[in-house]
Amino acid sequence: MQFASDNTSPVPPQVLEALIEANHGYAMPYGAEAAMTDLRDDIRNMFEAPEAQVYLVATGTAANALALACLCPPWATVYCHPNAHVEEDECGAPEFYTGGAKLTLVEGPHAKMDPAALERAIGFTARAGVHNVQAGAISITNATEAGTVYTPDEVAALAGIARAHDLPVHMDGARFANALVAAGCSPAEMTWKAGVDVLCLGGTKNGLMGVEAVVLFDPARAWEFELRRKRGGHLFSKHRYLSAQMGAYLRDGLWLKLAERANAAASRLSRGITALPGSTLLHPTQANAVFAAWPRAGHRQAQAAGAQYYLWPMDQTLDGLGHETVSARLVCSWCTTEEDVDHFLATIGPASGHDR
Amino acid sequence: MQFASDNTSPVPPQVLEALIEANHGYAMPYGAEAAMTDLRDDIRNMFEAPEAQVYLVATGTAANALALACLCPPWATVYCHPNAHVEEDECGAPEFYTGGAKLTLVEGPHAKMDPAALERAIGFTARAGVHNVQAGAISITNATEAGTVYTPDEVAALAGIARAHDLPVHMDGARFANALVAAGCSPAEMTWKAGVDVLCLGGTKNGLMGVEAVVLFDPARAWEFELRRKRGGHLFSKHRYLSAQMGAYLRDGLWLKLAERANAAASRLSRGITALPGSTLLHPTQANAVFAAWPRAGHRQAQAAGAQYYLWPMDQTLDGLGHETVSARLVCSWCTTEEDVDHFLATIGPASGHDR
Amino acid sequence: MQFASDNTSPVPPQVLEALIEANHGYAMPYGAEAAMTDLRDDIRNMFEAPEAQVYLVATGTAANALALACLCPPWATVYCHPNAHVEEDECGAPEFYTGGAKLTLVEGPHAKMDPAALERAIGFTARAGVHNVQAGAISITNATEAGTVYTPDEVAALAGIARAHDLPVHMDGARFANALVAAGCSPAEMTWKAGVDVLCLGGTKNGLMGVEAVVLFDPARAWEFELRRKRGGHLFSKHRYLSAQMGAYLRDGLWLKLAERANAAASRLSRGITALPGSTLLHPTQANAVFAAWPRAGHRQAQAAGAQYYLWPMDQTLDGLGHETVSARLVCSWCTTEEDVDHFLATIGPASGHDR
Amino acid sequence: MQFASDNTSPVPPQVLEALIEANHGYAMPYGAEAAMTDLRDDIRNMFEAPEAQVYLVATGTAANALALACLCPPWATVYCHPNAHVEEDECGAPEFYTGGAKLTLVEGPHAKMDPAALERAIGFTARAGVHNVQAGAISITNATEAGTVYTPDEVAALAGIARAHDLPVHMDGARFANALVAAGCSPAEMTWKAGVDVLCLGGTKNGLMGVEAVVLFDPARAWEFELRRKRGGHLFSKHRYLSAQMGAYLRDGLWLKLAERANAAASRLSRGITALPGSTLLHPTQANAVFAAWPRAGHRQAQAAGAQYYLWPMDQTLDGLGHETVSARLVCSWCTTEEDVDHFLATIGPASGHDR
Repeated sequence: MQFASDNTSPVPPQVLEALIEANHGYAMPYGAEAAMTDLRDDIRNMFEAPEAQVYLVATGTAANALALACLCPPWATVYCHPNAHVEEDECGAPEFYTGGAKLTLVEGPHAKMDPAALERAIGFTARAGVHNVQAGAISITNATEAGTVYTPDEVAALAGIARAHDLPVHMDGARFANALVAAGCSPAEMTWKAGVDVLCLGGTKNGLMGVEAVVLFDPARAWEFELRRKRGGHLFSKHRYLSAQMGAYLRDGLWLKLAERANAAASRLSRGITALPGSTLLHPTQANAVFAAWPRAGHRQAQAAGAQYYLWPMDQTLDGLGHETVSARLVCSWCTTEEDVDHFLATIGPASGHDR
Repeated sequence: MQFASDNTSPVPPQVLEALIEANHGYAMPYGAEAAMTDLRDDIRNMFEAPEAQVYLVATGTAANALALACLCPPWATVYCHPNAHVEEDECGAPEFYTGGAKLTLVEGPHAKMDPAALERAIGFTARAGVHNVQAGAISITNATEAGTVYTPDEVAALAGIARAHDLPVHMDGARFANALVAAGCSPAEMTWKAGVDVLCLGGTKNGLMGVEAVVLFDPARAWEFELRRKRGGHLFSKHRYLSAQMGAYLRDGLWLKLAERANAAASRLSRGITALPGSTLLHPTQANAVFAAWPRAGHRQAQAAGAQYYLWPMDQTLDGLGHETVSARLVCSWCTTEEDVDHFLATIGPASGHDR
Repeated sequence: MQFASDNTSPVPPQVLEALIEANHGYAMPYGAEAAMTDLRDDIRNMFEAPEAQVYLVATGTAANALALACLCPPWATVYCHPNAHVEEDECGAPEFYTGGAKLTLVEGPHAKMDPAALERAIGFTARAGVHNVQAGAISITNATEAGTVYTPDEVAALAGIARAHDLPVHMDGARFANALVAAGCSPAEMTWKAGVDVLCLGGTKNGLMGVEAVVLFDPARAWEFELRRKRGGHLFSKHRYLSAQMGAYLRDGLWLKLAERANAAASRLSRGITALPGSTLLHPTQANAVFAAWPRAGHRQAQAAGAQYYLWPMDQTLDGLGHETVSARLVCSWCTTEEDVDHFLATIGPASGHDR
Repeated sequence: MQFASDNTSPVPPQVLEALIEANHGYAMPYGAEAAMTDLRDDIRNMFEAPEAQVYLVATGTAANALALACLCPPWATVYCHPNAHVEEDECGAPEFYTGGAKLTLVEGPHAKMDPAALERAIGFTARAGVHNVQAGAISITNATEAGTVYTPDEVAALAGIARAHDLPVHMDGARFANALVAAGCSPAEMTWKAGVDVLCLGGTKNGLMGVEAVVLFDPARAWEFELRRKRGGHLFSKHRYLSAQMGAYLRDGLWLKLAERANAAASRLSRGITALPGSTLLHPTQANAVFAAWPRAGHRQAQAAGAQYYLWPMDQTLDGLGHETVSARLVCSWCTTEEDVDHFLATIGPASGHDR
């Protein structure tokens, strides 16, 4: 009963097989291997973006920070939701890579920026000329940190505001596959057709060992990206082991199948929890994470049974609040089974409703 | 009728005289002039801080950013009010000088941080170990950007929270003299006795051409400060012209007299405005700035008469809102006269109450 | 006949097997997996350094830059050889991670810093107080970029100078295993016993997909390192795939066996080339790289036969110089065979001596 | 007998008078004062550059570092002479402001870069694609740190190489006036007509309290410069006291007259020293500094008489070397008189030739 994070999962067999296959003989280093050329073509085709440039790095933080550094100068600010990974979970990597830019927090329900709040925030930035930081870029996380999903129309609404202010748009797609299968749209519809300039296409959380693709729909900043990647220590010499993994991930729709399984598990879990008396959802379950509150007794039982998950917000404790229910985050991954879900539901269910 | 900012004022004659006097013959450069030694001693005496180190720079932004860089590492955050100069008016200088630290905004009425909000903000920072930025330093602006003043007890309350979390305390004292005469306390009581580690003691807004003193009550970081100052391009070769100005400013209590005049003018202005029908104060008038709303007609008359001041917040326009009153910021300086104030009050007064 | 770089090689089967084994079930992320604890203990034992802290990253550039950032403040300089990887091949990563420190180049034959030159360079730095950058750290590359090896005594000579000036010592050990087997000493003798404070222990060039260990012999800066690693985007969530590789690498002396094979191949190659008429070595062959000049005709034959290697220095061309011989770099790896070497020697050999 | 530096001098009366005049009434802050508009026009006229943008800062280090940051991205390098102020005397300010760029040192006699060496250095930078830092900008100091002067043709030779590699050219003109009167050319001939993109036009060393003008001949980067200046803490609120000084400096050719006096004093001093038996010049005396060696006894006499100057190189001591002569740097300023020079010459002269 492992629901702590999708980053505790192993990789599917296809990824291991791809590594084994990539391990024959010598290969050109630094992305010059033949497999990278193929992968680039595949991503261009998949995104209907023949001009796009594609780079691989090993962590989502590197992908986001490098991308933002190409979009936002040091004296500007990135508009993002207060719950965005770039704000909360990267120890200031965007500030480091941009050379000291700011992040401006734009509220909105369920970890999605509200367009009106974005418009206000941009307007406020412009008030004092040289004296305050300038508007820099927009960062949209999809799927969000609350397990919700922006539709292409919702992305386009935010990107349209960005465009009106001549600002570029970054998408943190650490869980892009989960968002895509939830929204039921094409990769192009979710990104450049909706106004996204740079996508960080996650692989790690959805089944790779540590590979993310950065897709620059406008190749004008490609060389700058390459220099920043090298300078950040993120250019792999034995790059073939990155391209092999990402190639296997995208081949035959594996990435979407993995995301479908994770999302389906979360959906089953969400339905099961909301069926319990005294339970509520904190956010709609749209991707692979469930945010819910249920009776304290059920948490006690889950803990006794060894279930792994975080109380959420993280500064809660099981005994520290007066409420009868306690809220938590449960994350499913590609390898979460129906049995895992049902076992967990059975664990928290029966005794719920009365604390002990 | 100049109320746009205290930075539009000239300098008092004592400052010019000090420059003329300092201009004789050769002098050692880079702060090695004799006048700097004297000034350092004066400041140590005045602050009852014999160990303090004292450095001069030419702008408040430089003083604040250099001080914060010595207190807060790149991977940490500075807690300050959303209206703080370091957040709103320095184009990201703290982020630049710290190497990419963040600012965490702590709310509170009248531009003063609320201690409970500070405690919560620090607690929230600590939630996720290496994954988010660390707690770095506290920055208190006194007098505030809203023309209010922290008492020594209020400073001590915030600094006590800082101390409990092992965080250093910075005071942005661009209008320190105004705060001091308002609070009626000694320099030491307002600073290190209340828990302040570094004070940026402003001179520019209160009568100098461009000189601020940075007072490090703990000299441990003095050499680092010197290196950061040089590296930031803020070490003057002909430093004598800085020490001469600051020396004249502090001599015979000139700085306090200048601040008393500015505060008295603001007080008179505040009383006059609140006596007008339909007027209200946005913030208590405690230092040299008045934030008030009065009828639109009075603004029209003031503008016609050439009065200089900013509508506040700055994104307002005189005609853009439906209200009958419009709010503004009026800043007095050491050279604002009673006649200036009374003339302004007469201008906005008579026709007020009905818009035209 | 692949001699372009050791980074074109595949990984040995033990590494793949370790990945397969690590792929079972869930694992704690971010280095909290059990295998990392074991690995840390192994490295402590191997280096006779029970207090050392150990961190994994994926590239040598990241390892070096993060380590140097912990040792050298932004206003200081790192002393290194002009041919050091940190100077020539990291696109300014040390400058980026330190926040703008300098590198001061210290000459010496065969890519090894001359102690007298180091002493002079440090002395020169100290000349002007706050006006120039300060002495920061020493960086020693072992094995060097010229395929030579510092003995423990040579390391100690440089580190002793550092110590006398209170400067910390970094060792870039991207080819540490090659240096170790060449010098025939223990890991401790080559590092902390000789005065090294931080070792970047390379795995990638010698048989891993992309894993380097940073060993901090003094753990005082460990938490800073962790924050810098996270902030640089170098903390892997699925960290188990790094620890698994490094664990396999160090187990049963595999790393030393791989290095012995590479060094032996280079030695055979070096002997073979120097036996050719008209050939000379540019640097003594002490590790896994050969720097030699041989007749142009031999290069022509090698190229025709598809041999891969770089002319060295890299700004040479085969036809651009008037000399009869042309110099090149040939790098052997763990998978270079005696047959590869002999085949190459046969290719360049017979027709040598007369250009065509 | 003050020859330590031109920064020990006072300012001429015209500068004080300009400050007194500027001190009447209120003035718009931050460079919006009327005097700045006039000054900008004057500089445009003087340089025959109607499109140029002009900004004022208070130190030469700030001027250089801000200018270079606009010309050179973080992943590139600035080509300069090893004796350049940006390399030796700014504590890494260029590295700080650029966000971690490098400086590449280009040798040449008498502190002037050799064009062939520059060409080689640029060629070397290009060798390894993404793996090393990129070519960024050229920085030429005129007059140099050795008291020599580049002619417009010599500037054009270096700038032509820069242009051929698509690199911008910065001129550090901390002693620009001294260079100009020495070369006998127009401001335009020495700068943009010779290929200079940005000039840092010094005022401080030649008679101001602390004002330097940055002249951007191409205004494309003007807004970026303004943001960097603000963010660096170098935008003065009471900017009128900068523009007043620089206005007085340029009015009626005062700056050139001051430089002529300094250069003439140095020339007299140089002739006098070289007439002494056993004396030699280290560099030709072309501006306001003399680098010469003369007998140790003469130094002893000068010191006994209280003369101020630096032994040069600075790591020398009067007794530390075995030579009979000791070398020194003597800097003249606008207020050095013929009497000062003759008195000094008399002091070092008579007893020279035999050490005591």
